[in-house]
Amino acid sequence: MADIAAHLGVSRQLVSLVLRDLPGASEATRTRVRDAARELGYRPHAGARALRRTRSADLGVVFSPVHATEPEIVQAMYDAAAAKGYHVILAAQTPSRSLSTSVDELLSHRCAAVVVMGAEVSHRELRAIVDRSPVPITNVGGGNRNSSYDVVRSSGDIGISLAVDHLVGLGHRRVSFLNSSTMGPARLRLEGYRRAMQEHGLELDVVMWDGEHDEQAGAVAARGLLARPELPTAVVAGNDQIAFGLLQVMLRAGVRVPQDLSVTGFDDIRIASVPGVELTTVRQDPALMGAAAVELAVRRVESPKSPPALRSVENTLVVRASTGTVPAR
Amino acid sequence: MADIAAHLGVSRQLVSLVLRDLPGASEATRTRVRDAARELGYRPHAGARALRRTRSADLGVVFSPVHATEPEIVQAMYDAAAAKGYHVILAAQTPSRSLSTSVDELLSHRCAAVVVMGAEVSHRELRAIVDRSPVPITNVGGGNRNSSYDVVRSSGDIGISLAVDHLVGLGHRRVSFLNSSTMGPARLRLEGYRRAMQEHGLELDVVMWDGEHDEQAGAVAARGLLARPELPTAVVAGNDQIAFGLLQVMLRAGVRVPQDLSVTGFDDIRIASVPGVELTTVRQDPALMGAAAVELAVRRVESPKSPPALRSVENTLVVRASTGTVPAR
Repeated sequence: MADIAAHLGVSRQLVSLVLRDLPGASEATRTRVRDAARELGYRPHAGARALRRTRSADLGVVFSPVHATEPEIVQAMYDAAAAKGYHVILAAQTPSRSLSTSVDELLSHRCAAVVVMGAEVSHRELRAIVDRSPVPITNVGGGNRNSSYDVVRSSGDIGISLAVDHLVGLGHRRVSFLNSSTMGPARLRLEGYRRAMQEHGLELDVVMWDGEHDEQAGAVAARGLLARPELPTAVVAGNDQIAFGLLQVMLRAGVRVPQDLSVTGFDDIRIASVPGVELTTVRQDPALMGAAAVELAVRRVESPKSPPALRSVENTLVVRASTGTVPAR
Repeated sequence: MADIAAHLGVSRQLVSLVLRDLPGASEATRTRVRDAARELGYRPHAGARALRRTRSADLGVVFSPVHATEPEIVQAMYDAAAAKGYHVILAAQTPSRSLSTSVDELLSHRCAAVVVMGAEVSHRELRAIVDRSPVPITNVGGGNRNSSYDVVRSSGDIGISLAVDHLVGLGHRRVSFLNSSTMGPARLRLEGYRRAMQEHGLELDVVMWDGEHDEQAGAVAARGLLARPELPTAVVAGNDQIAFGLLQVMLRAGVRVPQDLSVTGFDDIRIASVPGVELTTVRQDPALMGAAAVELAVRRVESPKSPPALRSVENTLVVRASTGTVPAR
């Protein structure tokens, strides 16, 4: 700013006033100052702007870069935030950094609100963060309505029941459900399976385990099914990674999908639509999830007295080649 | 800070001095101020700190959250930066945001240097960014040594030649190379294939196309190979995504891997080690890539006169189940 003032031979105050769009300068002066600013490559200082404002226009987002679904939601948040006049600052959650380190980093940049991505973050952890944070916290994950922080989640129960309905419509009656019990939205997804199966008058077959919910876990579960005297005719997996691991083991074992076995997933991650995989799956729309998170966070920034909310985002079923009519046995 | 001063009945200047570790206060006063700061939940303001310092300790990183390999490198950069006393600020590259928007955002936070992830960013784009940036720029991708910005790349030529050597060692002589010509490091990887094949006295079979280098492209290339009168006995793919798309189509077409066809990839993305996929691939160590990027960026922050450098990171071959001895035909 001093450079611009020196260049034009005017006071710093005058330059500052023009660059902040305040009254008190002629149009001719404004034009000269703006031209000089452009010419000299003047760049407003975000830190200085943050100090001047009482409320910053940055939304902080903590996410796991290697997670299968979070990056797409983060991508969607940029657009949603821009539409409301906010910027996004990201902090990555990594195995060597605690969640609170990431949140503190964002708070030190004076974010107006912090969105914590992750269905695996416990209510206890989130409560501890809320207690230390001067700004509203929103969780994108699998939690319940509460009085401390906003929750955006997908309606996993309805999503899974869409998958069951689809399979039953194809004639399947022996439909197994495979999931890790420690996945954030596990309870909700199991509930959807249970309800849909009972509505169709079918017997439950739940295979659950404590631990990972990735391809490796799906492969282990697949080997468990292969060890049975008879396979089910359809498997509803708790997510796409489990479904994918299962699919690979089944194909290698000579089980044809979908001729011998139908398989569904959840999330519609990138790999689900790859030729040869073509997984029927429940799609969480990342754009809707991202927009909902931004909307809840901004609402509480702009109306600090409004209570934290729960937003359940609707899912849709994407039918691909991994499901087909029940085999005639 | 004013709160702490009021709480203790001392001047703001004294509090500021203690919190910035400057001389001029007794040990007793220091202890009282620090205790009060802790008690009142005082959090230093990153913006204010940035204004006070001439040089900020933040490294800005632009990356694509949905890219297969970048998130792991970003994750590694956090550790490398922390070890050198720097923080990382991320900006996500999305289809709706230009690269220069992301860079400007990071510059407005007064980053000390900006790392641009991405082998697809052109030299021209990077030059334009360097021209507008007051801080050093480092590219993690596929570029060459130049006088404008640092480059970190993996030695893709050596990596691909490791894959060819491995296949030839298994008895393969008809080894095809599949890649997109528009992928950033395409030239380097092709060079590695050409050199290794010629060293072994084998005939080249290069299948290249303009466009995507993802699973879909690999599937299209696989169908092209299946349309030939005879398949090669081994395929070296330009990356894991191409290899994976090819693998799925081959398996569905009844081609057994590796009994009928050996396949190698490049990158060692997460899916490569999944049971049933088990892709032999060239591993770019994300920790080494991330550390190299941080090292080059910090070097130029701390020695602004040192010229931009090129760092080629060594690759290793990870042998899994997708490669085997040549079929006896």
